[in-house]
Amino acid sequence: MITIKEIARECNVSPTTVSNILNGKPKVSQETKERVLETVNRLGYRPNYIAQGLRNQKTKMIGIIAEDIAQFTTPEIVEGIMSYCEENGYRSIVKNLRLYARWSDSWYNKEADYHAILEPAIRELTSIMVDGIIYIAGHARVIHCFPERFSTPAVMTYAFDSNPEIPSVGIDDQGSAYEIVKYLISKGHRRIGVIGGKADNIHTQERLLGYQKALFEHQILYNPAWIRYAAWDEVSAYPEAQELLKTEVTAVFCMSDKMAGGLYRCLNENGKRAGENLAVVGFDNQEIARYFIPGLTTMSLPLKEIGNVSAKLLLQQIEGAEKGTPRNDVKQKILIPCTFIERESVHRI
Amino acid sequence: MITIKEIARECNVSPTTVSNILNGKPKVSQETKERVLETVNRLGYRPNYIAQGLRNQKTKMIGIIAEDIAQFTTPEIVEGIMSYCEENGYRSIVKNLRLYARWSDSWYNKEADYHAILEPAIRELTSIMVDGIIYIAGHARVIHCFPERFSTPAVMTYAFDSNPEIPSVGIDDQGSAYEIVKYLISKGHRRIGVIGGKADNIHTQERLLGYQKALFEHQILYNPAWIRYAAWDEVSAYPEAQELLKTEVTAVFCMSDKMAGGLYRCLNENGKRAGENLAVVGFDNQEIARYFIPGLTTMSLPLKEIGNVSAKLLLQQIEGAEKGTPRNDVKQKILIPCTFIERESVHRI
Repeated sequence: MITIKEIARECNVSPTTVSNILNGKPKVSQETKERVLETVNRLGYRPNYIAQGLRNQKTKMIGIIAEDIAQFTTPEIVEGIMSYCEENGYRSIVKNLRLYARWSDSWYNKEADYHAILEPAIRELTSIMVDGIIYIAGHARVIHCFPERFSTPAVMTYAFDSNPEIPSVGIDDQGSAYEIVKYLISKGHRRIGVIGGKADNIHTQERLLGYQKALFEHQILYNPAWIRYAAWDEVSAYPEAQELLKTEVTAVFCMSDKMAGGLYRCLNENGKRAGENLAVVGFDNQEIARYFIPGLTTMSLPLKEIGNVSAKLLLQQIEGAEKGTPRNDVKQKILIPCTFIERESVHRI
Repeated sequence: MITIKEIARECNVSPTTVSNILNGKPKVSQETKERVLETVNRLGYRPNYIAQGLRNQKTKMIGIIAEDIAQFTTPEIVEGIMSYCEENGYRSIVKNLRLYARWSDSWYNKEADYHAILEPAIRELTSIMVDGIIYIAGHARVIHCFPERFSTPAVMTYAFDSNPEIPSVGIDDQGSAYEIVKYLISKGHRRIGVIGGKADNIHTQERLLGYQKALFEHQILYNPAWIRYAAWDEVSAYPEAQELLKTEVTAVFCMSDKMAGGLYRCLNENGKRAGENLAVVGFDNQEIARYFIPGLTTMSLPLKEIGNVSAKLLLQQIEGAEKGTPRNDVKQKILIPCTFIERESVHRI
């Protein structure tokens, strides 16, 4: 393997100069810098970050494990993690498990298959000596992810680890649903239907609790006939929207923007319009929401903030571990509220 | 550092058994497997993939450098790369440069700033001994990315490297635009407007050439007054859509679905409808396209295939390098066609 000394000899400079250039320190002439970097690349010199990590006892590198970076929520969470890490002098690297690409929605209960994919990813990150790991789930649930007494600092994001030592960061589904349903009530609506996600899903259940709370506070009776469930997407929401249009609801809370898309299509086919004949709100504030006509009022997921907070919790653990603080001092479960986005899909009655 | 031998002693099994379990080989009882893995995690054993790589001269790991994984095109390209790699026994890891998050659209000409971010990422991947690197650009252009005579196999994706030794994979903008404009002509439209992206952008220019080719083949005169440019998004396209509605065009080719969104909004405000009063086609087949009412006819970007082909080119280089084939034997520039997606936004006249 090529060493710094050999690069220095080849370029006729001191090893310290080469090292300074590779570590981005100033005070080297542009000409020397270019000549050294050209030689570094030509000879294929590979600075040994791992060895540096061993010397410093830290690599200043964190690992991110994503269940699937093609899930719409994941890239922005990654961005939130990375921006916080960079501001604090940490680098990061991503392992993508491709769980949805691999198995679609059918893997939640296949514990053995899941661990056959997960464990090599964890081992790979620990083998390159990351200082900590953040796991990004595709949707909220309780996951048996990190092993018991796992020796690397770790944070679970967008879900909850069954290992109580692992802190987690998610969205405040209940509070956010409460807020948007209260908004519908403030516009005079009291007969409010729901198109929820899958009935056994944590997001669905928490958002329904928020809906119930808003209704109760305004002394509105809960009518189970107005609560429909679908699979988060437009196609499965469409028949539920058809059923709701046969009832006397004046407003519908859709638990995803995509499902609101199914309702919009149904309204359009009946010569009706959101914000005129029926008040409609969504959830997620995906890109589609602003392209709906009229624009869809919805709750924006705090994805970047979730990433920021996860990174903050992880760096606290890493730095706490240095100081000898036991990990459970930073054990936490943090829920972050969504942001209300008002567009034109709700009218006053 | 804990060794395999120590794990074996602790579990009262042979080092070979531990090694087999860590490498996922069968023929070990479930009970032993669980006991060993528990010990591995408890003692914090880290299998040294790097040392394994040195022994085998290969790590069977490739690095992916993304300009920004929050660009809508990137996660699906990553998925295409990873699925191909896994099928062929390679693992992968992602570095995210966050260029758009960092600098929005203002970094294309800041060569020094760009290289200050890029070069540490390349060095980090070479220091963990990846067998090759795929770079994923956010949009098509010529980039000075990999150094001259770079010793690691590399592929440029969604753009072109100024280093002619680096093979590249992109989309066939010209052929795809030709196809969708020919479709408009087949529906009887001869006065076809364009809302293009930025005028100096490679995608815009190639798609305009495809438009010109379709017009020429049908002996339709090119009318520069019907060609408008915007910044790929809805907001900048809206005033251009207003201008086009004052002309006698019967159809508009929008170079992104988002810009078609600006045209839809403009039509809606004028009491008009795509597919009835004006034929509209988009480009990209982003998720928004199917939520438009009526659904938007568009060209679907072959992102997963771009990823597959990039990975294939990289593995060819890696395996060619083993056999001593010079890299320029696999030098290539591959353009992959988009897929036509017909919805309801074009009527026959």
